[in-house]
Amino acid sequence: MSGAVSTPAAPPSQLGFEFETPARSGAEKPSTPREPARAASRRGASAETMAKQQREISVSEFFTKNRHLLGFDNKRKALLTTVKEAVDNSLDACEEAGILPDIEVRIEQTDEDRFRVTVRDNGPGIVKNQIPNVFGKLLYGSKFHRLKMSRGQQGIGISAAGMYGLITTGKPIRIVSRTGPRAEAHLYRLAIDTQKNKPDIISEETTAVDWPHGTEVSIELSATYQKGRASVDEYLELVAIANPHAKMTYHAPGQATTEFPRATEELPRETKEIKPHPHGIELGMLMKMLKQTESRKLGAFLQTEFCRVSPGGASEICAKAGLTAATWVNALEPPQIEKLYRALQEAKLKAPPTDCLAPIGAEAILKGLLKEIKAEFYTATTRDPAVYRGNPFQVEVGIAYGGELGRDMHELASAALNEGAASSEGGASASGKADDEDVQTRVIRYANRVPLLYQQSGCALYKSVVEMTWNNYGLSQSRGALPRAPMLILIHLASVWVPFTSEGKEAIADYDEIRKEVRLALAECGRKLNALLKRKRTRAQFANRRSVFTRYIDEVVEATRAMARVNKEELREALLKLSTRYTEQADMEFDEHGKVLKKLLPGNDLGLADTIVVDRSSDAPPAPETLFASPPAGGSATAGSSKRGRGARRKR
Amino acid sequence: MSGAVSTPAAPPSQLGFEFETPARSGAEKPSTPREPARAASRRGASAETMAKQQREISVSEFFTKNRHLLGFDNKRKALLTTVKEAVDNSLDACEEAGILPDIEVRIEQTDEDRFRVTVRDNGPGIVKNQIPNVFGKLLYGSKFHRLKMSRGQQGIGISAAGMYGLITTGKPIRIVSRTGPRAEAHLYRLAIDTQKNKPDIISEETTAVDWPHGTEVSIELSATYQKGRASVDEYLELVAIANPHAKMTYHAPGQATTEFPRATEELPRETKEIKPHPHGIELGMLMKMLKQTESRKLGAFLQTEFCRVSPGGASEICAKAGLTAATWVNALEPPQIEKLYRALQEAKLKAPPTDCLAPIGAEAILKGLLKEIKAEFYTATTRDPAVYRGNPFQVEVGIAYGGELGRDMHELASAALNEGAASSEGGASASGKADDEDVQTRVIRYANRVPLLYQQSGCALYKSVVEMTWNNYGLSQSRGALPRAPMLILIHLASVWVPFTSEGKEAIADYDEIRKEVRLALAECGRKLNALLKRKRTRAQFANRRSVFTRYIDEVVEATRAMARVNKEELREALLKLSTRYTEQADMEFDEHGKVLKKLLPGNDLGLADTIVVDRSSDAPPAPETLFASPPAGGSATAGSSKRGRGARRKR
Repeated sequence: MSGAVSTPAAPPSQLGFEFETPARSGAEKPSTPREPARAASRRGASAETMAKQQREISVSEFFTKNRHLLGFDNKRKALLTTVKEAVDNSLDACEEAGILPDIEVRIEQTDEDRFRVTVRDNGPGIVKNQIPNVFGKLLYGSKFHRLKMSRGQQGIGISAAGMYGLITTGKPIRIVSRTGPRAEAHLYRLAIDTQKNKPDIISEETTAVDWPHGTEVSIELSATYQKGRASVDEYLELVAIANPHAKMTYHAPGQATTEFPRATEELPRETKEIKPHPHGIELGMLMKMLKQTESRKLGAFLQTEFCRVSPGGASEICAKAGLTAATWVNALEPPQIEKLYRALQEAKLKAPPTDCLAPIGAEAILKGLLKEIKAEFYTATTRDPAVYRGNPFQVEVGIAYGGELGRDMHELASAALNEGAASSEGGASASGKADDEDVQTRVIRYANRVPLLYQQSGCALYKSVVEMTWNNYGLSQSRGALPRAPMLILIHLASVWVPFTSEGKEAIADYDEIRKEVRLALAECGRKLNALLKRKRTRAQFANRRSVFTRYIDEVVEATRAMARVNKEELREALLKLSTRYTEQADMEFDEHGKVLKKLLPGNDLGLADTIVVDRSSDAPPAPETLFASPPAGGSATAGSSKRGRGARRKR
Repeated sequence: MSGAVSTPAAPPSQLGFEFETPARSGAEKPSTPREPARAASRRGASAETMAKQQREISVSEFFTKNRHLLGFDNKRKALLTTVKEAVDNSLDACEEAGILPDIEVRIEQTDEDRFRVTVRDNGPGIVKNQIPNVFGKLLYGSKFHRLKMSRGQQGIGISAAGMYGLITTGKPIRIVSRTGPRAEAHLYRLAIDTQKNKPDIISEETTAVDWPHGTEVSIELSATYQKGRASVDEYLELVAIANPHAKMTYHAPGQATTEFPRATEELPRETKEIKPHPHGIELGMLMKMLKQTESRKLGAFLQTEFCRVSPGGASEICAKAGLTAATWVNALEPPQIEKLYRALQEAKLKAPPTDCLAPIGAEAILKGLLKEIKAEFYTATTRDPAVYRGNPFQVEVGIAYGGELGRDMHELASAALNEGAASSEGGASASGKADDEDVQTRVIRYANRVPLLYQQSGCALYKSVVEMTWNNYGLSQSRGALPRAPMLILIHLASVWVPFTSEGKEAIADYDEIRKEVRLALAECGRKLNALLKRKRTRAQFANRRSVFTRYIDEVVEATRAMARVNKEELREALLKLSTRYTEQADMEFDEHGKVLKKLLPGNDLGLADTIVVDRSSDAPPAPETLFASPPAGGSATAGSSKRGRGARRKR
């Protein structure tokens, strides 16, 4: 396109043609000549009239009109979002209080296209006077102002769900909360005054409940219930994978109750709140902090308001800015603050502490995948923490490959394939397009242990998968697409502040640092997978070679029989040994008795704790649901790093 | 994936292996046994301690932390977003006041990675006491609460830009505004108190300016300036296409001044505010309206608060709900309101009025494209208004094909190709990946005359293009990709409320109604393009046939010469005439003299006002920049519908 650089536009007559004036454009205007000057304007608006229309917009009004920003684009998604917000809050509350979560989710149909969602937890409960604000006010909460990993972070979610319910059904949100066995349970019915973004208390009373502590929230909303991709059902399954410490009971409308049992009694590591890191702040932020601090001297300010600034470090930074640790904070002039800012940015500081993060852990990811996915090969990795914009974060990847993934994959793959279009369609029943193309990898994404079910193609985690060169890891892949393999990739981003692309928290924004960590984690798992794939190929070759060799043993024996000094049996043994030695590795892997998941000791030739290989390639029919209950039934398994599978390599 | 339906998880020992406990996961926990009950929790949080952390989050704090939601993901985009918000506001203000916009954009570098953006308009100005709120408070404005097409709609943009500047440079936003030649100009310097979302007035004074009315805003911000895709330069070029009534002067850093001259003296049609349409509201909204109305009786309420409800219609609706027009509004019970709501939804009502919309118009789109794009074929269409969620909207499409698009296209195409990934990368310098694949269509998107430069692949407008079957229109296309053609597609969505996918207003959310209208508009233009392409092919065939025929004329003449009664010259003439008649159409199109843009009269065989064909296929070198200045210089042009090119069709 060429810019209209300094070329005056020709008046219409010079164009060599004239347009008809279509009736819809301008024809209704009065024909009085108009002057550019405002005085002659036919239009009423002046600065004064416009001023009268200026008004404050409440955040509730804003999100009522823009509800798709919060995940309420359509009725199916509205149901998911409501459950998600309530369950996320419950899990957060339980973990913060050190309680193993026990959560009940109930969805009841109340009318055509109308459902009541009820979520109850065994958390610490909410004190009475906070209930109205927590559920009846957008942008209110405990998680926004601190740097610490949690599922919620905005203080919008559950109130928005209540607001959506209110708008679509007129029914208030219902909350029952109890803070302990000796406390009374309080029942609130709340509406939201959207013009003021304030809770509107409809009723308030004490009530009797049979649970000692926790919170129960009920929202009636216009929605549709549907199983399948991006459904409440899928969401809870994925929650179970990433939260093995949580027990969940799910009553879906018209369905049998589903239990998601607890797989570990261990709570995620307790996370600690951290102070901002100097490298993560900006000049304006520093100015604001200097204004608000209770420290009176610069040295104290730097040490108390930031992490990783030691007394010595503080003095050094001050000196670099031409100041001292004893400089009065409120005496600083803007140019000095700018110097201080630069000194802070240039200072060599340790990365922020990472006890604010609680990754799932490679072990728990493997447990989760083993529990839910019947694959042949599993591996997982947890990267060391890294930092973006001063925020610590940590990436974890798990890969499951082969086994029943190959079989079920068609369905999953087409769901994944269509997800891009589907999510943007609002996700409602978009899985209609069944895709008969090749089996394709499925990606499941998590942020702070919360599954992300929409906006896949816009998510940094997904993009990182697509941008890997999977051909390097023994998989086929078209450019810009997922690898074609019976594979499931789990990616988890844990961070004190997850940069979502929208308030609906559906996809993660692009940060180079995040992309890099995901790439490295994928590569780590990819290498192990590649080793497995190589070993499988090598194994197949050796097995083949052995069978050829073995076939000829008898003839060789027969041929040498004539030679008097040769003992027939001895020769046969020797040759068999030879055959076996060459194919040792294949034997090891093909141990055909007892399908036991063998944990190899650390230091073992094959030993890596983060990889599991389950042999599902034997002729025995797969034994569904019995993998754990009856270990000796069938299917051999070895755990260990295929990367270190030296047996195969030695022989090449 | 199999759900863990009611199968209790085996304790770890049954799994046949045990995990090492990696140090990073849980190893730091105290080893005291923990009970699920809260009382025994090792963690401090209880309902009481958690209550103390609950706080209100101001919308400014929220967007400071989530600045990528507003288009401030990175420094390059920050510059664009700042210019965009200021220019959008200026254009809106001028149009509302009936002033032909004259806008000056200046970008000055003040330091490494730091720029000052100044935008001045000749609008009506802003009254003194509104200045602080308009520029220093998020969610404040005149456009949110009304149903009327305008560029701004949220009351966030310019304040957010100021806030970003403040955070990154510590410099306040500077505003000068004057409401008329007799009024004083007021100069404000404003910061934003993000904790309270309130303007913080740094200074306030009167000043002398040499312009009679208008507003000037200056923001200093951390940014980078770069030309190319998604740059300020591109943005202004695209604004010029869709806003031919605006004059803009652009001073880019270290560049010569660029003028975007006014191409028409006609302002867009004045838009009128409308009332909500009954089919666009929800139950909760109706309840709220009933609470807030000043009407005391139901009939009056329905007629005054909604559009398209006549007195008769109101009575009918009331009757259907078991009520009457005389029912007291404040006596309505919830079940009655629900009945009323259903009656409203079921009532047959006219679509909402459409004078709230001001489409660009097919004519102006053609003018804009002709001005900026040197193509061979242009066509445009404006669809009739339609409605989504009660909001009237209108879709317009323009297509430019061939000509220099084929030449420059490589560059443009690869930019377009990479846009998906690029925009999500934050868009900074993402055009690095030059793509050597085929020439590809470029899509330029507008919402309420504002160009959308990011998030292309997530935009309903773009998706509609990709999902068309362009093969039906004579173009080649891979599945899920843009058609491969030297083509530019302009799409404009005009609506009283544009459903953006984020506050940054970069992409349009999926609504079936919008997708459908875009599809129909594309098909309309596609048919015309297809006719052109067909005619070109037919023309080429006929030209070829004629040349073969003509070649033999002399031999035929020679062969029949012997026959006494044949006049050689007459025969030759006759044969030539025959040759010409068969290729009449080709002749018409190939008129090689005088490259004049010929406007065909309505009713003419070829005449459609919304299509232009410029012959750029002649051997003469293209005369750049002279298309309008010197019409007779070269290049023949015909305007008209190739769809009605009967000459070609008749002969088939």
